[in-house]
Amino acid sequence: MSPKESSRRHFLQAGGAAALTGVLAGSQTETGKASAQTVINMPFKEANPRMGMIGTGGRGTELLKNFLGADTEVRALCDLVSEKARHAQGLVTEAGQKSPELYTEGDHAFEQLVARDDLDLVVIATPWRWHTPIAVAAMKHGKHVAIEVPAATTIEECWQLVDTSEQTRRHCLMLENCCYGENETLVLNMVRAGLFGDLLYGEAAYIHDLRSELFSDAGEGLWRRAIHTERDGNLYPTHGLGPVANYMSINRGDRFEYLVSMSTPSRGLAAYRAVHIPKNDPKWQEKYIDGDMNTSLIKTANGLTVNLQHDVSNPHPYDRLNTIAGTKGVFKDYPARLYLDGSAKEEYGTLDRYRDQYQHPLWKKEGEIARKLGGHGGMDFIECYRLVESIRRGLVPDLDVYDAATWSAPGPLSRLSVEQGSAPVKFPDFTRGRWKERKGSSIGAVVS
Amino acid sequence: MSPKESSRRHFLQAGGAAALTGVLAGSQTETGKASAQTVINMPFKEANPRMGMIGTGGRGTELLKNFLGADTEVRALCDLVSEKARHAQGLVTEAGQKSPELYTEGDHAFEQLVARDDLDLVVIATPWRWHTPIAVAAMKHGKHVAIEVPAATTIEECWQLVDTSEQTRRHCLMLENCCYGENETLVLNMVRAGLFGDLLYGEAAYIHDLRSELFSDAGEGLWRRAIHTERDGNLYPTHGLGPVANYMSINRGDRFEYLVSMSTPSRGLAAYRAVHIPKNDPKWQEKYIDGDMNTSLIKTANGLTVNLQHDVSNPHPYDRLNTIAGTKGVFKDYPARLYLDGSAKEEYGTLDRYRDQYQHPLWKKEGEIARKLGGHGGMDFIECYRLVESIRRGLVPDLDVYDAATWSAPGPLSRLSVEQGSAPVKFPDFTRGRWKERKGSSIGAVVS
Repeated sequence: MSPKESSRRHFLQAGGAAALTGVLAGSQTETGKASAQTVINMPFKEANPRMGMIGTGGRGTELLKNFLGADTEVRALCDLVSEKARHAQGLVTEAGQKSPELYTEGDHAFEQLVARDDLDLVVIATPWRWHTPIAVAAMKHGKHVAIEVPAATTIEECWQLVDTSEQTRRHCLMLENCCYGENETLVLNMVRAGLFGDLLYGEAAYIHDLRSELFSDAGEGLWRRAIHTERDGNLYPTHGLGPVANYMSINRGDRFEYLVSMSTPSRGLAAYRAVHIPKNDPKWQEKYIDGDMNTSLIKTANGLTVNLQHDVSNPHPYDRLNTIAGTKGVFKDYPARLYLDGSAKEEYGTLDRYRDQYQHPLWKKEGEIARKLGGHGGMDFIECYRLVESIRRGLVPDLDVYDAATWSAPGPLSRLSVEQGSAPVKFPDFTRGRWKERKGSSIGAVVS
Repeated sequence: MSPKESSRRHFLQAGGAAALTGVLAGSQTETGKASAQTVINMPFKEANPRMGMIGTGGRGTELLKNFLGADTEVRALCDLVSEKARHAQGLVTEAGQKSPELYTEGDHAFEQLVARDDLDLVVIATPWRWHTPIAVAAMKHGKHVAIEVPAATTIEECWQLVDTSEQTRRHCLMLENCCYGENETLVLNMVRAGLFGDLLYGEAAYIHDLRSELFSDAGEGLWRRAIHTERDGNLYPTHGLGPVANYMSINRGDRFEYLVSMSTPSRGLAAYRAVHIPKNDPKWQEKYIDGDMNTSLIKTANGLTVNLQHDVSNPHPYDRLNTIAGTKGVFKDYPARLYLDGSAKEEYGTLDRYRDQYQHPLWKKEGEIARKLGGHGGMDFIECYRLVESIRRGLVPDLDVYDAATWSAPGPLSRLSVEQGSAPVKFPDFTRGRWKERKGSSIGAVVS
């Protein structure tokens, strides 16, 4: 047996509902339906988009403010909690628009919203398990969709998004705000200009001490802590991974090929509960199984590697790593620091001397209002503005359903690898082979 | 097939010469000869050690200065290059000792040195491929051995060291100087005091831009670059891994169980050559295959994880990561920074306020002379001093052959995993199960 044959034997196939119960063979799970027509490079139909929003909690409200900041017409709002929907409605009327219609009756009120015939775009900011079902329903009703992260939590859901986007000819993109960060877009421009030479590896993470939020009796505490009782893997891969995927031109000349994943024990949430939660609280019935620190290694088709981490259960300063390295230098974030070959001293410098030359056009044009509106340093506004502008101008969107599926996939793939003792697990090729021929890159220059 | 059975199928066994050509079964490779008598907790026989040194190049000379600083009697020196041996001889006489005998005739001159009957300790600072053969020869001649890193480069060599140490009842330890660093020993004390809570993960690395040294026509350039044409994996795991293994009490209540490993393409050395090496130089015949950045994930028996990196071929500030994290906080190095639960701000602080309370006794006692002598910030002196003191006082050494084998093993294990598409590879249990019962910890307090 040659090493290559042996190596193949050790790959696990992930796909659909069976992904977490065993090993699947067959190419369908890897490339899906070969006959489907791609939405790569499909431009939006030029329109002044009329938006509906589903989920107007903390995150939905923040997004709404930024969409309103980008003068987006908001016609409908949906939330289970009518007070939250009404609060969002107030923000829209305060912005000088007509009062949007509200949908607040039960889990399936969103179905009425997506069935309206006067919407172009549906924005989804619900708990994670609703992202894909709502997105699929909205596309089937002819709406473009923008989903909060992660877009999907199983490989089956990833394929549902891709298949539906292709069948309905509607875009389904993920609102991965970190891709629009000032440093991220600056570094992306530096990568394109070749300052890092041939790329070699990236590092990406979501390290965010969420213990108090997870144990809150409001907001995300109502649903997000429960996920730590259900899965062991990377629950939230996209904030770190999206920008690194952009640096590496993933789905645009390269693709994620396989990953291995490893988790520590789950100790952080139980330790927090022991100190902060009264012994008679029902939370004491919960058993947390998600390893506190999950680390995955991803290999791309061109051989590059990504070190991807997730930890929300321990004391640690916020960190997305946001690292890209090549033959000519390395950038690391938190704090942002840069080292290029030939530097006088073997120590990191700042990005300051590169800002003028490499600042992204989106930030040059809209940075002032972005910083004023805030929202994660302004990245939220740039993200919302750019999406709406892309529709107004009939552009190809920066990010598409293939990115949404690819960046969400490490969630279920890491879970499968962890379950199988860190065995390598292949990424499906959501582009169905078109990553090879696709040109260009994500987060393009704005058309002024 | 249950997930557990499936998982077992995907583990590769590593052992001996066959390790890199296929998959081995059987427990021999995992735990060796069960009948051998352990050297765990075996004290040195009290003696004022008489030392011989093999390899008096750059690193050997540095070590020699530190051993002389610790008043070690040096009776014999060996090097292929007689000028280097004579230079070292001069250092010994300058220190007021009798002139040590020199062994400089050919590759096997070391055999005459280790056969002397007036030596207690042989120190080895040769190119890597000579470490194990010389160590085995020295132990068979009744000498204790201290080897530069890595002690071994194959699993077969790891077992040779363990078997020979047990059979000859001589210690064989690795001169892993980073374990004796001021920050490393301080953090080790903080870990022991419980400041980080239950440990979860560590990060370890050897990221050191060695491109100019590797292409030098002197020193390590004479042999070290060649290894990059022979292997793809982590060539040099111990500087990062040793201190993290100490934090985690590896071989003292826990052990490394398996790893997965992934390499980037090999681009850095070829890129450097293209710029710096004339086209008619024979170095242009070389083909570099070692991936520039190799990342391994290690799982311990207790479930902890280690992220282990190696990159010596690219522009990057020096970094060993040296990270340890638990339920109560995290320490990261380069620069040294600490964050403990309950901090007023979500940002790192320095170690300064912990130095007085947690400084290691070895540094309290010998820090002044260590810093004066230098050698990687003084860690080299502390290391040499501690070894010689342990023999003088008849102590159990801080580190032993099981540590040497365990910390060297990621070299060949990472190579095997990379060859097999990042498949998980089991660590042999060099302690033959005794890691479970062993008490205490490495780098103990000095007896004053």
